[in-house]
Amino acid sequence: MQHNHPFPGVTEITPTANIRVPVHGGRAKCLQRLVRLGLPVPRTLALNFDTVASVGAGERLDCAGILAAMDPEMPLVSVRPSTAQPDWGGPSTLLNIGMTDRTHDLLQRSIGVQAADAIYARFIQAYALQISRLDPHIFDGQTTIRALQKAYEAALDEPFPQDPALQLADVLKSMARAWDGTTARLLREARGAPADAGLGLVVQQMVMGVGDPERGESGSGVIQFVNSAEGQPQITGRYLNQSQGREALLKDVPALYLTRDKRGPSLEERAPEIFEALQDHGAICRQRLREEMQIEFTVSHGTLHILDALRVKRSARAALRIAVALATDGIIPEAEAVLRIAPRTLLDVLHPQVDPEGTFEVFGKGIAASPGAATGRLVFTAADAQSAAAREERCVLVRRETTPGDVLGMHASVGILTQRGGATSHAAVIARGLGLPCVVGANTLHIDLREKTLTADDGTQLKAGDLVTLDGSAGRIIRGAAPLLEPAMDPAFRTLLNWADEQRDISIRANCDTPAEARVADRFQADGIGLCRTEHMFFEEGRLTVMREMIFAARPEDRRAALEQLLPVQRADFKELFTIMAGRPVCIRLLDPPLHEFLPTDRAGMLSLAAALDLPLSAVTERVQSLTEVNPMLGMRGVRLGIAVPEIYEMQARAIFEAALATEPRVAPEIMIPLVSAKREVEIVRARIAAVADAIEVETGQSVDYALGVMVETPRAALRAGEIADCATFLSFGTNDLTQMTYGLSRDDAGRFMSAYVGQGVFPDDPFLQLDTDGVGELLEIGAARGRAARPSMTLSLCGEHGGDPDSIAFCRRLGFDYVSCSPFRVPVARMAAAHLAIREGEDLGSAPPIR
Amino acid sequence: MQHNHPFPGVTEITPTANIRVPVHGGRAKCLQRLVRLGLPVPRTLALNFDTVASVGAGERLDCAGILAAMDPEMPLVSVRPSTAQPDWGGPSTLLNIGMTDRTHDLLQRSIGVQAADAIYARFIQAYALQISRLDPHIFDGQTTIRALQKAYEAALDEPFPQDPALQLADVLKSMARAWDGTTARLLREARGAPADAGLGLVVQQMVMGVGDPERGESGSGVIQFVNSAEGQPQITGRYLNQSQGREALLKDVPALYLTRDKRGPSLEERAPEIFEALQDHGAICRQRLREEMQIEFTVSHGTLHILDALRVKRSARAALRIAVALATDGIIPEAEAVLRIAPRTLLDVLHPQVDPEGTFEVFGKGIAASPGAATGRLVFTAADAQSAAAREERCVLVRRETTPGDVLGMHASVGILTQRGGATSHAAVIARGLGLPCVVGANTLHIDLREKTLTADDGTQLKAGDLVTLDGSAGRIIRGAAPLLEPAMDPAFRTLLNWADEQRDISIRANCDTPAEARVADRFQADGIGLCRTEHMFFEEGRLTVMREMIFAARPEDRRAALEQLLPVQRADFKELFTIMAGRPVCIRLLDPPLHEFLPTDRAGMLSLAAALDLPLSAVTERVQSLTEVNPMLGMRGVRLGIAVPEIYEMQARAIFEAALATEPRVAPEIMIPLVSAKREVEIVRARIAAVADAIEVETGQSVDYALGVMVETPRAALRAGEIADCATFLSFGTNDLTQMTYGLSRDDAGRFMSAYVGQGVFPDDPFLQLDTDGVGELLEIGAARGRAARPSMTLSLCGEHGGDPDSIAFCRRLGFDYVSCSPFRVPVARMAAAHLAIREGEDLGSAPPIR
Repeated sequence: MQHNHPFPGVTEITPTANIRVPVHGGRAKCLQRLVRLGLPVPRTLALNFDTVASVGAGERLDCAGILAAMDPEMPLVSVRPSTAQPDWGGPSTLLNIGMTDRTHDLLQRSIGVQAADAIYARFIQAYALQISRLDPHIFDGQTTIRALQKAYEAALDEPFPQDPALQLADVLKSMARAWDGTTARLLREARGAPADAGLGLVVQQMVMGVGDPERGESGSGVIQFVNSAEGQPQITGRYLNQSQGREALLKDVPALYLTRDKRGPSLEERAPEIFEALQDHGAICRQRLREEMQIEFTVSHGTLHILDALRVKRSARAALRIAVALATDGIIPEAEAVLRIAPRTLLDVLHPQVDPEGTFEVFGKGIAASPGAATGRLVFTAADAQSAAAREERCVLVRRETTPGDVLGMHASVGILTQRGGATSHAAVIARGLGLPCVVGANTLHIDLREKTLTADDGTQLKAGDLVTLDGSAGRIIRGAAPLLEPAMDPAFRTLLNWADEQRDISIRANCDTPAEARVADRFQADGIGLCRTEHMFFEEGRLTVMREMIFAARPEDRRAALEQLLPVQRADFKELFTIMAGRPVCIRLLDPPLHEFLPTDRAGMLSLAAALDLPLSAVTERVQSLTEVNPMLGMRGVRLGIAVPEIYEMQARAIFEAALATEPRVAPEIMIPLVSAKREVEIVRARIAAVADAIEVETGQSVDYALGVMVETPRAALRAGEIADCATFLSFGTNDLTQMTYGLSRDDAGRFMSAYVGQGVFPDDPFLQLDTDGVGELLEIGAARGRAARPSMTLSLCGEHGGDPDSIAFCRRLGFDYVSCSPFRVPVARMAAAHLAIREGEDLGSAPPIR
Repeated sequence: MQHNHPFPGVTEITPTANIRVPVHGGRAKCLQRLVRLGLPVPRTLALNFDTVASVGAGERLDCAGILAAMDPEMPLVSVRPSTAQPDWGGPSTLLNIGMTDRTHDLLQRSIGVQAADAIYARFIQAYALQISRLDPHIFDGQTTIRALQKAYEAALDEPFPQDPALQLADVLKSMARAWDGTTARLLREARGAPADAGLGLVVQQMVMGVGDPERGESGSGVIQFVNSAEGQPQITGRYLNQSQGREALLKDVPALYLTRDKRGPSLEERAPEIFEALQDHGAICRQRLREEMQIEFTVSHGTLHILDALRVKRSARAALRIAVALATDGIIPEAEAVLRIAPRTLLDVLHPQVDPEGTFEVFGKGIAASPGAATGRLVFTAADAQSAAAREERCVLVRRETTPGDVLGMHASVGILTQRGGATSHAAVIARGLGLPCVVGANTLHIDLREKTLTADDGTQLKAGDLVTLDGSAGRIIRGAAPLLEPAMDPAFRTLLNWADEQRDISIRANCDTPAEARVADRFQADGIGLCRTEHMFFEEGRLTVMREMIFAARPEDRRAALEQLLPVQRADFKELFTIMAGRPVCIRLLDPPLHEFLPTDRAGMLSLAAALDLPLSAVTERVQSLTEVNPMLGMRGVRLGIAVPEIYEMQARAIFEAALATEPRVAPEIMIPLVSAKREVEIVRARIAAVADAIEVETGQSVDYALGVMVETPRAALRAGEIADCATFLSFGTNDLTQMTYGLSRDDAGRFMSAYVGQGVFPDDPFLQLDTDGVGELLEIGAARGRAARPSMTLSLCGEHGGDPDSIAFCRRLGFDYVSCSPFRVPVARMAAAHLAIREGEDLGSAPPIR
């Protein structure tokens, strides 16, 4: 049965009252749950959103009646906000409303003069500040109640209100109006609140916590049963004798520990029965509210009251452990534990983070391009990075922008900083693949490559060898070594991801170019490799020279001779990848970038190449110049290269096949053709690869099992997917390039204006980070539908950087894709995101009420 | 009534016989028409395609019967090929078949010994060569009939055939087999013949042309009534007494002129009644065959015979005059005259051409990028071109590739040659706009810019100052001054295009950046300007410096000051364009290219800029470097620039509006936003332009009438055309960039491999030349449909280079586009092409029988 308070819009919180989060807010609902669990909650009324709104608009409630309905003897109450979501803000809690000269007198009698004075004095000041909005300085030097009241009267030209009902009415109106203020609205909208988000208020009878020591223990405190930073079980909190609210948490108060503690006295020792009751209440809350709660309690003359309970604030890693523990204890289903962890928060668990509590000096800012943080000494060239690594020195590589020639230097660094480029620039993509923190587009910093200095706008300077901390999660360059939180990859992490895997219905592969990356992918249990970019393999020491010989070869036979030197190393690369992935599918993209990327760009490099190849310098510079392109992204690369210089793809196919035949368990490699724009390109390459497979079959007597597919990176390939499907068994959408071409926007050049563009709302998001479902997405939809229509067994996937983004995974899953592929460090995020989607779709869990 | 010859597959050509071009070939049909017109055609039989094919396969016709049916007295015939299209080749005509010792005797009696001997001797040799396929040397030194017969017998081990029927059978078989040979097949397929194209043969009773002078005039000749090169009425041809076939046209024979001629005797004098009859026959042919015909005639003992008639071969300009004359004379309708001129042939009329009859030495080859031919001295820099122009010296500019900084130099040149780039590279586009011949992608030539030399693969060299002829129609670089044919823009040209305009139902505008181009567009009666690229305006002397000041401005007010200097010159530019176009619509694209294109690229240029701006060199180089982009095509340009630096578009809008208000007749300018990929971009620019218009209205009291639209150049703009339509009243598809982005292919870099790609059939055509209707075309279709669905009044157009291509015009017309816009020199082609489409669709003219 439901007991409505006689005042409309005001409901007494009883076990059967009709309290609902969308009407009264989360705090009211949580208090009702505590009441239902039989916890000793003082009498509490809930004012619903509409009522608070009308109070804000000027309507007056019968506050005298409300107070009379609470405790006619002692009209003292607290008011707390109650919003639909706990992080939407709201006014601060105000205690002791109703304190007047009269209640002061009454209180003196029950708790003693000193305690009553202290409470009244504090209330006058709090009321003046929070409700009457007076300047705190008016009370400077005043300590007596009389003096404080005079100061109040002087400032406001009216006496401190002596009617508890009037006080309550003004508090309610003030809180309601503050909620409508611009500051509060912007704050909550930034946190996702809708424009019409409502404020509920909870009016609770005061339990004083300050009392007559003769009549038993009085005080207040806060308790929780897990560690907020790490998530392991641990009773945490403080208790302060003769206090109210959250005073026990203030600094410089003689607060007690809760459990026995060598450092000082504890509640457990001082009031063991109250401590035990708190533990019982905590256990009930955890079990029945299915969550770790922080409980605010007050002891009044020896009696324990529970005033409020909040979901424990927690770090990402604590959230993960808490969710796993709740499921392991049978309190929540495993699927719900999975759902409780937002996929993106896993990134915080996987990388070191700058400790937000630490102190440090920010030197500059850029775009947060790859998460995590690392400390090292500044270097300005890839070669310096390699030297530093050889000396086992940690270094942060600074470049204007990176090129494939910098990749080895990036491998040798602990972090990458570039002045140019956006979130999917070369530096960003490689760094994410390597799991290194990366900041790009730091265009307020001036790099002097000759002097090897980095200068901020204010003229301050860092030079090579200086220690910096790169914060890739927040896009900051920090001077010196900032305090870091180390990553946790504990059993809870693995357990949760295994639960996630039981739920998800789309495969997650990793983009891996090197054995090191494949090992990360393996560690994170990727379902295979969705994109192996073979070009990075050619930048390794020794290979680059052979690659350059190949490029400089005047005759096909010279080219073939150079490629024959590359064959065994490529074969070894692939064999290692296949071995690491142990039977899981591996999709290898044939060489993609323009050949000139393999050539030196400066005079010194050309000179040394000329020496190595025994050619005149002019021949080298001319050849390099002849390979230079105006728009390399749209030039002679990908399948165009494969058709123009067939020997390269033939060598690669041979290396793949020979490696596959030499690996146990046997793998059926997937070969992917890049940058296709016409069916005929696929036909030509397919025929040549089939010829290589036939040749190997003749040579070895073993038949090669492989799949041939197309990387859909040009809008035309998406549009023509129907005919391309004739000669491809899989289509993998490379959304990086597809986004570039659909927008006509180079990711290398977008950094200069993308943040301004997103800031001005020209694009709602950076399309290189957030898949543009309207434009690029429509091409995916068209390509997928036409590909599947022509070949129902077509394997569909996405292998761009978006592969690790939960929204993109949702999009791909809706289109019936078989897998997404992302950088190895993103695999856990993707596994979680995929699980969320499947769980939400499959079960009514999706509509379970949020926990408060 | 129809008289079929008793032999199956052989039809006697009579007025009522069932002779059809697809069965018997065009010559047979034409002969029937001559017969129907009552012309004195000797008895003729037509062998249809099937019959000839079966003869080739070994079947034997009753040749004795055929000969008997012709003239039992004198079994002498000629055989000529008759194919469905006249230019598909076929065997050479053979005369005097049936010459044996016996017919030789008979002939001696009718035409005299000497004439009979000559005919027999010539026949033996022709037969040996054409039919028995013997080496002509076997007859060296032999002149008597006996000796020739012996040589024949020695070579073939069998006597010269003495059975006329056998001769005819062998001739028919030989001709049929030659038709099936590879050479003939490749030749005709290259001219568009289908694989199963048939050969018909025409067997005609010989009229000798060689006779007894006592019995009257004998001889043969050829006559036509127009000049093949120029098309004006002029009796042209030769007559040779005592000759056969086309002997009168041989060199070094005493042929007669046809009309009275000071240089020598004429047929008109020698046999006025025959000359008159020929004129009558010619007039009948022109009137009734509705075409200018070349007539082959023979006079035998005073009697005129018409053996054959062919459509007069003609140059493009002659074709045009002939078609206009036929229509003016009421012989064909005007629409048919329009249809008779293939639109692309107009290009030959508009530009000088290398005389194909002339002699010249080809130095190198490249891609034919802009038609026409010009002779000038080689220069290697834009500055040298300008100096040459100042000296009034014609020069051909050679560059590796051109950049916007070369445009002034291009203006100063008579032709452009580049080593790199494809048919839509910068050089090609600008050259077509200027109507200059251009050859691009001449990658077998080595350019040494320091030495200013051009070296061919064989080591031969040209140097600065050397005279060359650039043939942009054939992609050739010719050493020295090749003989040129000058262009003709005569009244016939204008008449025909006016007739075309009466037919077409899609507008044709021109892409004009300068007043000079606008004047060309006006001369070619373009319906307006469809694309005015404003960037070229900033490269002019003086303006470039101000533009650079604007780019280097540190503060918005400095930028505005620089732009204020540019405002009056832009306003003057637009006013001149509006004035030239005299009320026709003018669509102006706001600034598009990346700012760095306006900056110097070499040290010297940077130094002089530093001096001009009074800045340290390092500041200039750093700024230039900071503006450099990896893929400028996909970078900070177009609307992105407009949003980042609003002052530029605001200045341009003001210049446009002020120019429009100052022009009479008043024009409603169309303002086009380039490189849009999202609706919000359009909204922002639209609001700023509206503010400029409002400001001008306040300042002047005059309201500005203008239209705002979007250049659809990114795939995303096409896909999102529905929402973009909310704030654009026109969509103009920029198919150059759209093709680049749909294919992921830069037009500047495609030149290196496009010809190989098209050659290998990877792409059926160069998509920058031939609109890719499958891919890019689908985006046009999507964009057009969505744009019109959202805004039914939406103006749709195409303004890429494809705008001048007849197939693209057909495609746009099918999609319901309002206009296409092409380079001014292409306007006549586009007008014709559009007329063709409307005529073909509208009338049964499209299915009228072809003329033969």
